[in-house]
Amino acid sequence: MRKNGVSRYVFKTFRYLAYLRPFRAMFIWGLSHMGDFLPMRKISETDSLFCFYHPQPDYPIHILLVPKKAIRNLSQFDPGEGEFLRDLFVTVRELIEDLNLEERGYRLIVNGGEYQDFPQLHFHLISGK
Amino acid sequence: MRKNGVSRYVFKTFRYLAYLRPFRAMFIWGLSHMGDFLPMRKISETDSLFCFYHPQPDYPIHILLVPKKAIRNLSQFDPGEGEFLRDLFVTVRELIEDLNLEERGYRLIVNGGEYQDFPQLHFHLISGK
Repeated sequence: MRKNGVSRYVFKTFRYLAYLRPFRAMFIWGLSHMGDFLPMRKISETDSLFCFYHPQPDYPIHILLVPKKAIRNLSQFDPGEGEFLRDLFVTVRELIEDLNLEERGYRLIVNGGEYQDFPQLHFHLISGK
Repeated sequence: MRKNGVSRYVFKTFRYLAYLRPFRAMFIWGLSHMGDFLPMRKISETDSLFCFYHPQPDYPIHILLVPKKAIRNLSQFDPGEGEFLRDLFVTVRELIEDLNLEERGYRLIVNGGEYQDFPQLHFHLISGK
Protein backbone atom coordinates (compact mmCIF):
# COMPACT_ATOMS: atom_id res chain seq x y z
CA MET A 1 0.00 0.00 0.00
CA ARG A 2 1.49 3.34 -1.05
CA LYS A 3 1.06 6.72 0.62
CA ASN A 4 -2.37 8.17 -0.12
CA GLY A 5 -4.88 10.41 1.59
CA VAL A 6 -6.97 7.77 3.31
CA SER A 7 -4.16 5.57 4.59
CA ARG A 8 -2.21 8.60 5.81
CA TYR A 9 -5.29 9.80 7.73
CA VAL A 10 -5.83 6.34 9.24
CA PHE A 11 -2.14 6.16 10.23
CA LYS A 12 -2.17 9.62 11.87
CA THR A 13 -5.31 8.79 13.84
CA PHE A 14 -3.71 5.50 14.95
CA ARG A 15 -0.59 7.31 16.00
CA TYR A 16 -2.40 9.74 18.27
CA LEU A 17 -4.57 7.04 19.81
CA ALA A 18 -1.51 4.86 20.37
CA TYR A 19 -0.20 7.21 23.07
CA LEU A 20 -2.94 5.67 25.23
CA ARG A 21 -1.59 2.41 26.59
CA PRO A 22 -4.94 0.54 26.50
CA PHE A 23 -5.33 1.47 22.84
CA ARG A 24 -1.82 0.22 22.12
CA ALA A 25 -2.65 -3.12 23.77
CA MET A 26 -5.85 -3.23 21.67
CA PHE A 27 -3.85 -2.47 18.52
CA ILE A 28 -1.50 -5.37 19.26
CA TRP A 29 -4.47 -7.63 20.00
CA GLY A 30 -5.90 -6.54 16.65
CA LEU A 31 -2.67 -7.48 14.86
CA SER A 32 -2.83 -10.92 16.50
CA HIS A 33 -6.46 -11.69 15.84
CA MET A 34 -7.55 -9.61 12.87
CA GLY A 35 -4.35 -9.42 10.83
CA ASP A 36 -6.18 -10.44 7.65
CA PHE A 37 -8.53 -7.47 7.92
CA LEU A 38 -5.91 -4.80 8.58
CA PRO A 39 -4.36 -2.75 5.78
CA MET A 40 -0.87 -4.20 6.17
CA ARG A 41 0.87 -7.09 4.45
CA LYS A 42 2.09 -9.47 7.12
CA ILE A 43 5.36 -11.27 6.36
CA SER A 44 5.72 -13.51 9.40
CA GLU A 45 4.86 -13.87 13.07
CA THR A 46 6.35 -15.59 16.11
CA ASP A 47 5.07 -15.92 19.69
CA SER A 48 6.75 -12.62 20.53
CA LEU A 49 6.67 -10.43 17.40
CA PHE A 50 4.94 -9.40 14.19
CA CYS A 51 6.77 -8.68 10.98
CA PHE A 52 5.01 -6.79 8.17
CA TYR A 53 5.58 -4.30 5.37
CA HIS A 54 5.37 -0.66 6.48
CA PRO A 55 1.96 0.65 5.40
CA GLN A 56 3.62 4.02 4.59
CA PRO A 57 7.01 2.94 3.21
CA ASP A 58 9.83 5.47 2.93
CA TYR A 59 12.12 3.00 1.08
CA PRO A 60 11.69 0.37 -1.68
CA ILE A 61 12.04 -2.24 1.09
CA HIS A 62 10.60 -1.05 4.40
CA ILE A 63 9.68 -3.73 6.91
CA LEU A 64 8.53 -3.33 10.52
CA LEU A 65 9.27 -5.74 13.37
CA VAL A 66 7.03 -5.12 16.38
CA PRO A 67 6.99 -6.87 19.76
CA LYS A 68 3.60 -8.32 20.75
CA LYS A 69 3.97 -6.85 24.24
CA ALA A 70 2.97 -3.21 24.62
CA ILE A 71 6.39 -1.51 25.01
CA ARG A 72 6.62 2.25 24.57
CA ASN A 73 10.27 2.59 23.49
CA LEU A 74 13.84 1.36 24.08
CA SER A 75 13.97 3.06 27.50
CA GLN A 76 11.07 0.92 28.63
CA PHE A 77 12.31 -2.24 26.95
CA ASP A 78 13.41 -4.95 29.39
CA PRO A 79 16.79 -6.29 28.14
CA GLY A 80 15.82 -9.62 29.73
CA GLU A 81 13.21 -10.17 26.97
CA GLY A 82 15.32 -12.99 25.56
CA GLU A 83 12.56 -14.60 23.51
CA PHE A 84 11.72 -11.40 21.65
CA LEU A 85 15.40 -10.61 21.00
CA ARG A 86 16.08 -14.07 19.66
CA ASP A 87 12.96 -13.99 17.45
CA LEU A 88 13.92 -10.50 16.25
CA PHE A 89 17.40 -11.45 15.07
CA VAL A 90 16.26 -14.84 13.67
CA THR A 91 13.60 -12.99 11.61
CA VAL A 92 16.08 -10.32 10.47
CA ARG A 93 18.54 -13.00 9.34
CA GLU A 94 15.78 -14.77 7.39
CA LEU A 95 14.75 -11.51 5.72
CA ILE A 96 18.37 -10.67 4.81
CA GLU A 97 18.66 -14.06 3.14
CA ASP A 98 15.21 -14.15 1.48
CA LEU A 99 15.50 -10.62 0.08
CA ASN A 100 19.20 -10.92 -0.81
CA LEU A 101 19.97 -7.90 1.37
CA GLU A 102 23.69 -8.56 1.94
CA GLU A 103 24.09 -7.81 -1.75
CA ARG A 104 21.66 -4.86 -1.84
CA GLY A 105 22.65 -3.23 1.48
CA TYR A 106 20.31 -2.83 4.44
CA ARG A 107 19.85 -0.96 7.69
CA LEU A 108 18.13 -2.02 10.92
CA ILE A 109 16.88 1.03 12.84
CA VAL A 110 15.13 1.83 16.10
CA ASN A 111 14.07 5.43 16.62
CA GLY A 112 13.49 7.04 20.00
CA GLY A 113 12.47 10.39 21.47
CA GLU A 114 11.38 12.86 18.81
CA TYR A 115 12.67 10.54 16.05
CA GLN A 116 10.06 7.90 16.97
CA ASP A 117 6.89 8.23 14.91
CA PHE A 118 4.65 5.73 16.70
CA PRO A 119 4.61 5.10 20.47
CA GLN A 120 5.10 1.33 20.33
CA LEU A 121 8.66 -0.01 20.12
CA HIS A 122 9.38 -1.08 16.54
CA PHE A 123 12.42 -1.96 14.45
CA HIS A 124 12.67 -0.83 10.82
CA LEU A 125 14.52 -2.99 8.30
CA ILE A 126 15.09 -0.89 5.19
CA SER A 127 16.90 -1.13 1.87
CA GLY A 128 17.19 1.13 -1.17
CA LYS A 129 17.08 4.90 -1.60
CA MET B 1 38.78 12.99 18.11
CA ARG B 2 37.45 14.83 15.05
CA LYS B 3 37.92 13.92 11.41
CA ASN B 4 41.40 14.79 10.24
CA GLY B 5 43.93 13.48 7.73
CA VAL B 6 45.84 11.14 9.99
CA SER B 7 42.90 9.55 11.81
CA ARG B 8 41.06 9.09 8.50
CA TYR B 9 44.09 7.33 7.04
CA VAL B 10 44.42 5.10 10.13
CA PHE B 11 40.71 4.28 9.98
CA LYS B 12 40.83 3.40 6.26
CA THR B 13 43.84 1.13 6.77
CA PHE B 14 42.05 -0.54 9.68
CA ARG B 15 38.96 -1.04 7.58
CA TYR B 16 40.80 -2.86 4.79
CA LEU B 17 42.78 -5.03 7.20
CA ALA B 18 39.61 -5.88 9.09
CA TYR B 19 38.30 -7.96 6.19
CA LEU B 20 40.88 -10.53 7.33
CA ARG B 21 39.34 -12.49 10.18
CA PRO B 22 42.62 -12.95 12.14
CA PHE B 23 43.17 -9.19 12.03
CA ARG B 24 39.64 -8.59 13.28
CA ALA B 25 40.25 -10.95 16.21
CA MET B 26 43.51 -9.07 16.89
CA PHE B 27 41.68 -5.74 16.75
CA ILE B 28 39.17 -6.97 19.33
CA TRP B 29 41.99 -8.32 21.47
CA GLY B 30 43.60 -4.89 21.20
CA LEU B 31 40.41 -3.17 22.36
CA SER B 32 40.34 -5.51 25.39
CA HIS B 33 43.96 -5.19 26.42
CA MET B 34 45.27 -1.93 25.07
CA GLY B 35 42.16 0.25 25.20
CA ASP B 36 44.07 3.06 26.94
CA PHE B 37 46.54 3.32 24.07
CA LEU B 38 44.01 3.37 21.23
CA PRO B 39 42.65 6.62 19.76
CA MET B 40 39.08 6.10 20.98
CA ARG B 41 37.29 7.27 24.09
CA LYS B 42 35.84 4.21 25.81
CA ILE B 43 32.52 4.73 27.60
CA SER B 44 31.94 1.32 29.12
CA GLU B 45 32.63 -2.39 28.72
CA THR B 46 30.93 -5.64 29.70
CA ASP B 47 32.06 -9.26 29.31
CA SER B 48 30.51 -9.31 25.83
CA LEU B 49 30.82 -5.79 24.38
CA PHE B 50 32.73 -2.53 24.11
CA CYS B 51 31.05 0.85 24.04
CA PHE B 52 33.03 3.90 22.86
CA TYR B 53 32.68 7.20 21.01
CA HIS B 54 33.01 6.88 17.22
CA PRO B 55 36.53 8.04 16.31
CA GLN B 56 35.07 9.61 13.11
CA PRO B 57 31.69 10.89 14.34
CA ASP B 58 28.98 11.85 11.83
CA TYR B 59 26.67 13.24 14.55
CA PRO B 60 27.08 15.35 17.72
CA ILE B 61 26.49 12.11 19.66
CA HIS B 62 27.86 9.08 17.84
CA ILE B 63 28.55 6.01 19.95
CA LEU B 64 29.56 2.51 18.84
CA LEU B 65 28.60 -0.75 20.54
CA VAL B 66 30.76 -3.66 19.38
CA PRO B 67 30.59 -7.33 20.38
CA LYS B 68 33.86 -8.77 21.70
CA LYS B 69 33.42 -11.84 19.51
CA ALA B 70 34.58 -11.49 15.91
CA ILE B 71 31.23 -11.34 14.05
CA ARG B 72 31.20 -10.11 10.45
CA ASN B 73 27.61 -8.80 10.21
CA LEU B 74 23.96 -9.46 11.14
CA SER B 75 23.79 -12.44 8.74
CA GLN B 76 26.53 -14.12 10.71
CA PHE B 77 25.21 -13.10 14.10
CA ASP B 78 23.89 -16.02 16.18
CA PRO B 79 20.50 -14.91 17.63
CA GLY B 80 21.24 -17.22 20.57
CA GLU B 81 23.93 -14.77 21.79
CA GLY B 82 21.75 -13.89 24.78
CA GLU B 83 24.50 -12.35 26.90
CA PHE B 84 25.56 -9.91 24.19
CA LEU B 85 21.96 -8.92 23.41
CA ARG B 86 21.16 -8.31 27.07
CA ASP B 87 24.36 -6.31 27.58
CA LEU B 88 23.63 -4.33 24.40
CA PHE B 89 20.16 -3.22 25.44
CA VAL B 90 21.18 -2.62 29.09
CA THR B 91 24.00 -0.36 27.83
CA VAL B 92 21.70 1.44 25.37
CA ARG B 93 19.17 2.10 28.14
CA GLU B 94 21.90 3.49 30.40
CA LEU B 95 23.16 5.77 27.61
CA ILE B 96 19.62 7.00 26.85
CA GLU B 97 19.23 7.94 30.50
CA ASP B 98 22.73 9.35 31.08
CA LEU B 99 22.67 11.49 27.92
CA ASN B 100 19.01 12.48 28.26
CA LEU B 101 18.29 11.03 24.81
CA GLU B 102 14.52 10.52 25.18
CA GLU B 103 14.30 14.31 25.23
CA ARG B 104 16.86 14.89 22.45
CA GLY B 105 15.84 12.06 20.12
CA TYR B 106 18.07 9.13 19.19
CA ARG B 107 18.50 6.33 16.68
CA LEU B 108 20.03 2.87 17.10
CA ILE B 109 21.36 1.59 13.75
CA VAL B 110 23.02 -1.52 12.34
CA ASN B 111 24.22 -1.32 8.75
CA GLY B 112 24.74 -4.28 6.47
CA GLY B 113 25.88 -5.06 2.95
CA GLU B 114 27.20 -2.00 1.15
CA TYR B 115 25.91 0.27 3.95
CA GLN B 116 28.34 -1.31 6.44
CA ASP B 117 31.60 0.62 6.68
CA PHE B 118 33.65 -1.79 8.81
CA PRO B 119 33.52 -5.60 8.64
CA GLN B 120 32.86 -6.24 12.32
CA LEU B 121 29.23 -6.14 13.52
CA HIS B 122 28.60 -2.84 15.31
CA PHE B 123 25.61 -0.84 16.50
CA HIS B 124 25.56 2.96 16.17
CA LEU B 125 23.70 5.05 18.76
CA ILE B 126 23.35 8.54 17.33
CA SER B 127 21.66 11.83 18.22
CA GLY B 128 21.61 15.30 16.65
CA LYS B 129 21.91 16.52 13.05
